[in-house]
Amino acid sequence: MDKRIEGFSKLTKAEKIDWITQAHFKNPTTAESQLSDYWNSDSDLQNKHDEFIENTLTNFYMPLGVAPNFLINGESYTLPMVIEESSVVAAAGNAAKFWQTRGGFEAEVLNTIKVGQIHFSYSGDIQLLHLFFNKIKTQLLESTASLSKNMKVRGGGIQSMELMDKSDLIPDYFQLHLRFKTADAMGANYINSCLECIATELEKLAQNEFKAHDGIELEVVMSILSNYVPECLVCASVKCPVSKLSPSKNWPGETFAKKMVQAVEIAKREPHRAVTHNKGIMNGVDALVLATGNDFRAIEAGVHAYASKDGHYTSLSNAYIKEEVFYMELTLPLALGTVGGLTKLHPLVQWSLELLGNPDAKTLMKIVAVAGLAQNFAALRSLVTSGIQKGHMKMHLLNILNQMGATQIQKEKAITHFKNHTVSVKAVAQFLQNNNS
Amino acid sequence: MDKRIEGFSKLTKAEKIDWITQAHFKNPTTAESQLSDYWNSDSDLQNKHDEFIENTLTNFYMPLGVAPNFLINGESYTLPMVIEESSVVAAAGNAAKFWQTRGGFEAEVLNTIKVGQIHFSYSGDIQLLHLFFNKIKTQLLESTASLSKNMKVRGGGIQSMELMDKSDLIPDYFQLHLRFKTADAMGANYINSCLECIATELEKLAQNEFKAHDGIELEVVMSILSNYVPECLVCASVKCPVSKLSPSKNWPGETFAKKMVQAVEIAKREPHRAVTHNKGIMNGVDALVLATGNDFRAIEAGVHAYASKDGHYTSLSNAYIKEEVFYMELTLPLALGTVGGLTKLHPLVQWSLELLGNPDAKTLMKIVAVAGLAQNFAALRSLVTSGIQKGHMKMHLLNILNQMGATQIQKEKAITHFKNHTVSVKAVAQFLQNNNS
Repeated sequence: MDKRIEGFSKLTKAEKIDWITQAHFKNPTTAESQLSDYWNSDSDLQNKHDEFIENTLTNFYMPLGVAPNFLINGESYTLPMVIEESSVVAAAGNAAKFWQTRGGFEAEVLNTIKVGQIHFSYSGDIQLLHLFFNKIKTQLLESTASLSKNMKVRGGGIQSMELMDKSDLIPDYFQLHLRFKTADAMGANYINSCLECIATELEKLAQNEFKAHDGIELEVVMSILSNYVPECLVCASVKCPVSKLSPSKNWPGETFAKKMVQAVEIAKREPHRAVTHNKGIMNGVDALVLATGNDFRAIEAGVHAYASKDGHYTSLSNAYIKEEVFYMELTLPLALGTVGGLTKLHPLVQWSLELLGNPDAKTLMKIVAVAGLAQNFAALRSLVTSGIQKGHMKMHLLNILNQMGATQIQKEKAITHFKNHTVSVKAVAQFLQNNNS
Repeated sequence: MDKRIEGFSKLTKAEKIDWITQAHFKNPTTAESQLSDYWNSDSDLQNKHDEFIENTLTNFYMPLGVAPNFLINGESYTLPMVIEESSVVAAAGNAAKFWQTRGGFEAEVLNTIKVGQIHFSYSGDIQLLHLFFNKIKTQLLESTASLSKNMKVRGGGIQSMELMDKSDLIPDYFQLHLRFKTADAMGANYINSCLECIATELEKLAQNEFKAHDGIELEVVMSILSNYVPECLVCASVKCPVSKLSPSKNWPGETFAKKMVQAVEIAKREPHRAVTHNKGIMNGVDALVLATGNDFRAIEAGVHAYASKDGHYTSLSNAYIKEEVFYMELTLPLALGTVGGLTKLHPLVQWSLELLGNPDAKTLMKIVAVAGLAQNFAALRSLVTSGIQKGHMKMHLLNILNQMGATQIQKEKAITHFKNHTVSVKAVAQFLQNNNS
């Protein structure tokens, strides 16, 4: 059957599924029921979820787990975490418990500025452009008055607008670089609407201004927010006397602290390690970002670009010992929202936000940064002590057992057996055959 | 009620939910039913999903949508996309259709090497370490024989192991840098198991070797794979005569091609723009990564670090015009798997892989890179022509209407009305009040 189709988006959900399964699957009936097995029995609720994106066929389950005992700036939190990777939630819970008895996490928002840019080309005299910009600046800003009205009431709005000469990078290339505050919204819609509005006004005024000047042209290339937000920063930290840092009786605090610092130093200097080090941080960050209805691609892009801001890709966290005290800290650019977007639409996002005490955007920034730091601490702790495979292999074993349809009794026997044996699909299959109860 | 708890992970799911809702929610009964509303009625299936991670309370729905008409290396595909952001699936479908009649997408895997490292400190003479390493190299590799047996059958295994002197970065810091092939698996478990095995062997042999040398110590700090995989690359591309590139009658091919190239040039030179440009690419990439059970944090970290490899953060894609032909291409490091991990465990991952014709890892790399390129093309096309808010605001309107519980008739009226009016929560509320049918 032909795998191309015209007018697919206009089909009903049932028609879409019918075509998809007929054209792509050996057994269309099975493929169809695999999709419908995941539908919610409440059709209104299902309809709501279907409308988040286009061509929705079903709900992809991501587990929503929770990690309790996070002490952040003196308050106790249980974190909602949406993630498909095993060990992450357990690691978060362990780190939370470890620090709960050692003063907890501190977190501070350093700034909340977001950025948007109008990229344009201009072929005339640069002085002329500056004069023109200064003349129309107020008018450009005023063109967004109706868009900005509500945002201003909430303490946000355009903070600055600058003309940037980038013609050293590309001939005739200029920008209007705008800085925004967006209160508790992530603000993408507001920022982009403002930018497109100003861009239209700019082109209109330029046409009028330069019509007498032969050969001068001002043309907007594009207008869009930037996900690079080095002025939207939050810092999370922990500290504790080295003498009290011991994670287990085999590891005196001093030895452990030194190894942790060494591991962070390596991530600061070695990009191959830095990438994985930061990936571990993002395990915690993204789990919260997803649970609270924020956009993880935006956060990921901003964070990793920030990690390379000084010309080489490096660790986002820092650790050091000073006067017998161990310090660990993480500074992240996080443009998050607690209103708008999915926050009001996805019932489990509302649930997650309520679990966190309905935080404002700044509080959420702190919580998410803490989740990243906790994950980083837990990963390094495993790496420098027992190695990460011990925990992973237990989860791996459970996954293999589930895949092979092991019974509860078989599972328990297997967990005991594989404490001292190497886990592999083959070894588990053999074990199950020998323990076929 | 106290928001701290001891022994949480040992509670049953019901007990966990009971405590969570009692301790954190104003209305625990509602909070409890919000979770159970999302449980699957098939308890075996639900149990399977609960065991992916720890402390699972329910299923967080991410919409699974599809984008048909992708012509890749001459084959037609429909892509499964898991994403919460509106417009992404529609954009993918549009880009697919656009290129379907212009030769389709080409994609090529350049290499599939993954990396793992054993980080260690060594305090003795460097020559002595080199001699020691050369002597034990075979023995170290052989220690992984049983771990590597199956991987070798599938054409994978350790490709190289090098001693790296990094003492210029940190005193006494060295690495064993290993390169792996992992066939159709992403390979994290295999790589980490090999590394930990070699690390143990290394420490054991070193202890024996250096026991006679006073003061020489070799100590492993940590052993782990790297998510930075600049040797695991795939390239996707499109090309088409400029004369045939016109996206609509207002946009002649030549004007459009020039604007597209200009937009990519800006992303190549301007980090603020590059971050958002690449974020758009990752909208497509991650939607496929999620649908196929791969780990998006690993992919994100590797991709963005690759974007900064030359000392400044830049565009991952390129576009140019040569001899009246428009070219656009995207090269990404993608360490993906089609076996292992979630692939066999999550029924909708299996469904997604079957939709793609059960690809091997290399084929999946190509498809995912194409999804990224398609998204990039679609985003730039919107940005340089109509702007992105036009499409976004329509989705935004639908979301507001759903949130306000609008009827189907009200929705249709509103869509017509807001074609010429600015969308805002207030304006929509007013409109619904005036059209309360």
